[in-house]
Order: sequence, then C-alpha cells, then structure tokens
Amino acid sequence: MTSDQPYDLFADALWQYRETGRADLSIERDDGYSSREDVAWYFTSPRDFPSHEKAALKFARGRGLDIGCGAGRHALYLQKRGLRVTALDASSRIAELARARGVKDVRVVDVCGARRLPFRDGEFDTVVLFGNNLGICGTLPRFRRMLRELHRITSPRGRILATTRQPSTTNPRHRSYLRHNVARGRAIGQVRLRLAFGGKRGAWFDLLLLSPTDLMQVAAKENWELASVFSLENFESGYSVVMEKQR
Amino acid sequence: MTSDQPYDLFADALWQYRETGRADLSIERDDGYSSREDVAWYFTSPRDFPSHEKAALKFARGRGLDIGCGAGRHALYLQKRGLRVTALDASSRIAELARARGVKDVRVVDVCGARRLPFRDGEFDTVVLFGNNLGICGTLPRFRRMLRELHRITSPRGRILATTRQPSTTNPRHRSYLRHNVARGRAIGQVRLRLAFGGKRGAWFDLLLLSPTDLMQVAAKENWELASVFSLENFESGYSVVMEKQR
Repeated sequence: MTSDQPYDLFADALWQYRETGRADLSIERDDGYSSREDVAWYFTSPRDFPSHEKAALKFARGRGLDIGCGAGRHALYLQKRGLRVTALDASSRIAELARARGVKDVRVVDVCGARRLPFRDGEFDTVVLFGNNLGICGTLPRFRRMLRELHRITSPRGRILATTRQPSTTNPRHRSYLRHNVARGRAIGQVRLRLAFGGKRGAWFDLLLLSPTDLMQVAAKENWELASVFSLENFESGYSVVMEKQR
Repeated sequence: MTSDQPYDLFADALWQYRETGRADLSIERDDGYSSREDVAWYFTSPRDFPSHEKAALKFARGRGLDIGCGAGRHALYLQKRGLRVTALDASSRIAELARARGVKDVRVVDVCGARRLPFRDGEFDTVVLFGNNLGICGTLPRFRRMLRELHRITSPRGRILATTRQPSTTNPRHRSYLRHNVARGRAIGQVRLRLAFGGKRGAWFDLLLLSPTDLMQVAAKENWELASVFSLENFESGYSVVMEKQR
C-alpha cells in the first residue's frame, strides 16, 4: 500500500509515539538504502537538544516562525523563552499534534508548494528550519524560492536558524549515490526518500542536503549570509547555521 | 623587495632548511591573514606522513607522476616501493633539490601554465598531487584543464591521489574571506597567497581549496570519479582523495 501524501506516515508515527511511547518508522532512499528513524527525537526536551541546535537557538529573537514544526519541540522552547512564535506544518494532523502539545499558533502551510507565503513583508525576525528542514523543498530552484520568500517576510534584521548535513562523501554507498545524482543532473545532495511505517510506504519526496560551501554560495545569490556555522561532530553528522539577511 | 616568481622564496626556504635545519617561512593571504609554514614538513619521512596521505598512497601502482614534488618526499617513498616515478616542479631550483635528495627522474614543468603536458597519451597509472597541490592551478578553468590533461596522459586504469582542504566555514575570519570571494565572482575556495621569507615577499598566486562535494561535481565533468575520500580530523583540516578515471 502506498500513502499519497509523503508526510501522512510521519503524522501516523508521531501520533502513535505520542499515544504509546513507541513508533517504528523507517526512511528508504531510492537506491534501496534504508535507515531507522528515532521518533522519540521529535519529542526531545530542550536540555537534550544537540549542541549544534543549542548554539544556533541562542541567536533567536523577536517574532519567530518555525517551518516544518513537527511535534513542536522548538516552537515550545521558543514560546517558553518568551518569543511569539508561529509554527507551520504541511500536514494538518501534525499541526494538530503540535497544538495538542501546547504550541499556541500553528498553521497548515506547505511552504514549498506555495509561490507566495501567506505573510506580510517584514513580519518575522527569526525563522527556524531544524531537523534538516533547510532542504525541505527538495530542489535547488525551490530552495532558492523559499529563501527569497523568507527574505521578503523577514524584518531588516531577519535571521534564519537552520540545520542540514553535508552529503556524505566518505561512505562508499552514499558516495555512489551522490555520483549518480551528479550523473543525472540533480543537485549532488538531492536525496529521494519515502517513509515506511505500519506496513505502509509513503510517496517519494526529495530532501536537499547541502555542504557548507554549497549553502554559502546559494544563500549569497538570495542575499542571505552565513554568519555562524556550528558542526555536530563533523559536517556529515550535521551542522547548524545562522544566516543573516543582507540588504 | 618582491620576488617575481611565486615559488622563488619557497625554493630559498627549502634549500636553507636542507642546509641549516631551519627556515622561517610564512604565507600571507590577500586579506592580511598570515600563517607560519612548517618547512620541516616537506622533509618528512614516510612513517610520519599524516594518516590521510598514507591511506591514499596505498592506492599507488604502476607508472607514477608526482606533480609539484617539492623536496621530493612522496617521489622518494614511491621509488623505494619500487615504482618508476617522474617528479615535476615548476621551479628549477626545487627540481634540483629533489634530485640532490635522490629522486631519479625530476623535470621542470609548469603543469598549470602548459596547455599541453609534455607526455604521451596513457603514459602514467598514478598521479600524485599532495600538499594541497590538487588546487595548484588556482582557478576552476585551469583546474579543469589540468584534469583533462591528466585524463589524457593516464592509462585506462589511471588514478589521481591528491590532497586539499574544505575551505573553512567555521572560523569567522575565513568565512568572511569566502564570502568576499563569492561576492567577487571567484570560486569560493580560491585563496590568493604570497610567501614571505628572509625579509622578502613573493608574487601573489592563487590556490584553489575544494570541498568534497564541489570536487566531486567538478571532477565528474572531466570524467574523474571520487572512489575514496579520507579526512584528516575533519575536511577543514585536510582530506585526501583517490580519483579513478572514467571511460
């Protein structure tokens, strides 16, 4: 069985974990590579956030926007710090979960599908894209369009706090996948994934992983500047960035 | 005083170290950043080679070409292992030093200046570009031309063993330099350097530093494939690659 919306199964898994404390979610790549996803992770409390998230979160201020909020762990943290936060998720059932967990302002918005985000110019000071959500739009053109829209809806002191991973070039299996991407004319870190949960498989979706230098070059074209970079253990295991709006 | 050839002072420093066991060489970047160069490094014996060089050197076989041989440490090692090696350096005085230290076949060739290398098609099996020499040609077009020529002069089982560094995005000073490169339309890791030695400063030259994903993408265009990647501690401190010829 195939689910139509890529994130339906993610909603199922989050809700099941919320209700039972268990959820066996897997992610499959289109070359057959599969990995188990730790669903507990989406319910982590602030003191257990990884170091590179904590470092970036220090830069949050003003009016906040959390894109792809999931179960809402970052939105809850920012609310607790006194920030006014709007949390977005493309799935209505995930938005409902974030609301049930205490996030005050949650809206169902597909940031990548929309040509124009439903917000006024300059409305936000801090945009959060954690959990590899920086590359949530999947392709370079859509990623650039999102950066342009975030430029529009942020104030002159606008900031993006985000995490992604350097596509792995040390692991032969992953390297071969990147090579295949390059050969097909896709972005090197454009990985095609689907979720597997409860005997079902979701629709395929693309996630864009970006190396720090690739990100720096693309961001500069949309007038965003990498002001800080914090790696986890190394760039392949994950890193966070603080991007400052230019002009 | 300014020396005309970028590498004249490098030749001076290597020769002085060879004769006195000391040489205070510095490298300056065009934003004023300066670092001390450890000249002893160029005379390291094989057991003290860094781990990422050792890992790549295991892939050496057949007829060898060492580009930018310097004092000859890698050429000497490969000779000792029984490989027939041709060592190249753009400086006649450095070539002379490598010869004096026992490298049998040393030629003065400016690999980056020559449109065509003075070798027959398919002549070499292994090309070595260590000490960040992968980016010795300084610009992306010249780097690609070198890759094309290496494709021509290598056998069907041709390999390149090389080292470079990921341009640093974690250090704010370096990140600002990369940003400036992007703004000027230069390659992100194209660093402009000059040597300082014995009260003199050399001419400016460009060195290209490449992230693994950037390298993978550029190499694919010239039909070279990253078969192995070995990082030192992380990609910013340095990494080696084994590149295999395609087609």
